[in-house]
Amino acid sequence: MKLSFNKRLQKICKEKNNRLCIGLDIDPNHFPHFRNKTIEAMEAFAKDVIDRTIDFCPVYKPNFAFYERYGSKGYALLERIVNFINNRSLVIADAKRGDIGNTSYQYSKSILDNMGCDAITVSPYMGKDAIEPFIENAEKGIFVLAITSNEGAAELQNNSDDKLPLYKKVINIANELNINDNIGIVVGATQTDVMEEIKNISTGLSWLIPGVGSQGGSLEKSITISNQGNIGIINISRAILYAGRGNLDDIIQSAKNYTTKIQKSLYSLETC
Amino acid sequence: MKLSFNKRLQKICKEKNNRLCIGLDIDPNHFPHFRNKTIEAMEAFAKDVIDRTIDFCPVYKPNFAFYERYGSKGYALLERIVNFINNRSLVIADAKRGDIGNTSYQYSKSILDNMGCDAITVSPYMGKDAIEPFIENAEKGIFVLAITSNEGAAELQNNSDDKLPLYKKVINIANELNINDNIGIVVGATQTDVMEEIKNISTGLSWLIPGVGSQGGSLEKSITISNQGNIGIINISRAILYAGRGNLDDIIQSAKNYTTKIQKSLYSLETC
Repeated sequence: MKLSFNKRLQKICKEKNNRLCIGLDIDPNHFPHFRNKTIEAMEAFAKDVIDRTIDFCPVYKPNFAFYERYGSKGYALLERIVNFINNRSLVIADAKRGDIGNTSYQYSKSILDNMGCDAITVSPYMGKDAIEPFIENAEKGIFVLAITSNEGAAELQNNSDDKLPLYKKVINIANELNINDNIGIVVGATQTDVMEEIKNISTGLSWLIPGVGSQGGSLEKSITISNQGNIGIINISRAILYAGRGNLDDIIQSAKNYTTKIQKSLYSLETC
Repeated sequence: MKLSFNKRLQKICKEKNNRLCIGLDIDPNHFPHFRNKTIEAMEAFAKDVIDRTIDFCPVYKPNFAFYERYGSKGYALLERIVNFINNRSLVIADAKRGDIGNTSYQYSKSILDNMGCDAITVSPYMGKDAIEPFIENAEKGIFVLAITSNEGAAELQNNSDDKLPLYKKVINIANELNINDNIGIVVGATQTDVMEEIKNISTGLSWLIPGVGSQGGSLEKSITISNQGNIGIINISRAILYAGRGNLDDIIQSAKNYTTKIQKSLYSLETC
């Protein structure tokens, strides 16, 4: 019997005793002077980071923009990186696709089947129709944007004039469509005020939590609230990839430091 | 002096006396039996359609999903198609990107600068931050999803519980950010009930209107309401690309028929 995506996520997070998701947003403009800015150097860098973290990192999340930036060559690089990970960890395609019907079905074929990613982020502006085309295959997952970590998010997602804020409407849709246990939500780590409330209305949905590293959201609250029953994973991109002096040792050390913080928060959750 | 995107759109629509946007959503699964389903056949087909319609069609809109479906090879095809159009008409990248900050900036580099598209569709779920990174270059445009043509759209975009419906909040943001005269909105042709209202609150924003062909929205209302002062273009995809028996003559005839309908509606607008 094959596991649903949410069960697969749970399994690998428990096996590696971690909730870290490394955001592979590789931007040569942030490379230190000793690293080339070519596509070949990007590839070598990504593979080095993966090689040195895969024993303890359960999830990687490449943001597609950083690859599409290089057109078809960047897209091919993305394909090679997913191949390189080769099911040793899960891969979330951070593509924030948000179309409907047959169009979204094409994205699902492309990103989940052909490229072989395990999950994809989806923007729910077009409603239920934007989510449904991705849920058919229970082993593959989607993370629906609910309440994001950026400053301008509240105006639409949590506008106090709305009887039911947009992010709650979206979570209700996600709950309703989670019949194959393969839906998660994106909850910004900066949104600590509403996390308890979200926990109460999102039973069964995994959380993908960006906004801890450079944006200053709370790792501890994010971990302890989201891992009560569900699985919540913390995405860190820049604060790992460009840590310290930018050499591989500093990068790995940063990933290990985040892992330690995550494990401490998980431990405090188990013992409280 | 270089023209803003909205002015460029206006100029080419007036020159070609048309408001047709052909949606290049090329899906080999809909090809007739006499056409191969290879990427080479997709390319030849796209170029044939463009060659035979470019004299009267001011805008083409490839939906990226239909190309990304083939991974990096599909992405390369997209690049060749944009090159082939070569500024003879405008190209809207229907990519519905919806990220923020530096990430969206990467999309803007990729799709508008490198690939050379003239505009891009954007999903506004993440708020103002999702739109701002695209507006810098006045010559290039963005179309922000406001109220879409799909059945499930209303639940989030026009929910009667909201004091101000989501689509109006989005239009207000679009208005506010339209300082470079390069923003448009996506308004589904099925949303005839609210079009007059949208017209009154969207002065200066161009409209991209999907949902006429296969989804049954009103071409006449869409044209006459959106072209009072602004420019509104009608996107037709399947009802042109897979018209009649699927041969090139049937396809061109369908594009011409839509053009005639559009011109009649424009004429009735001018003379009423």
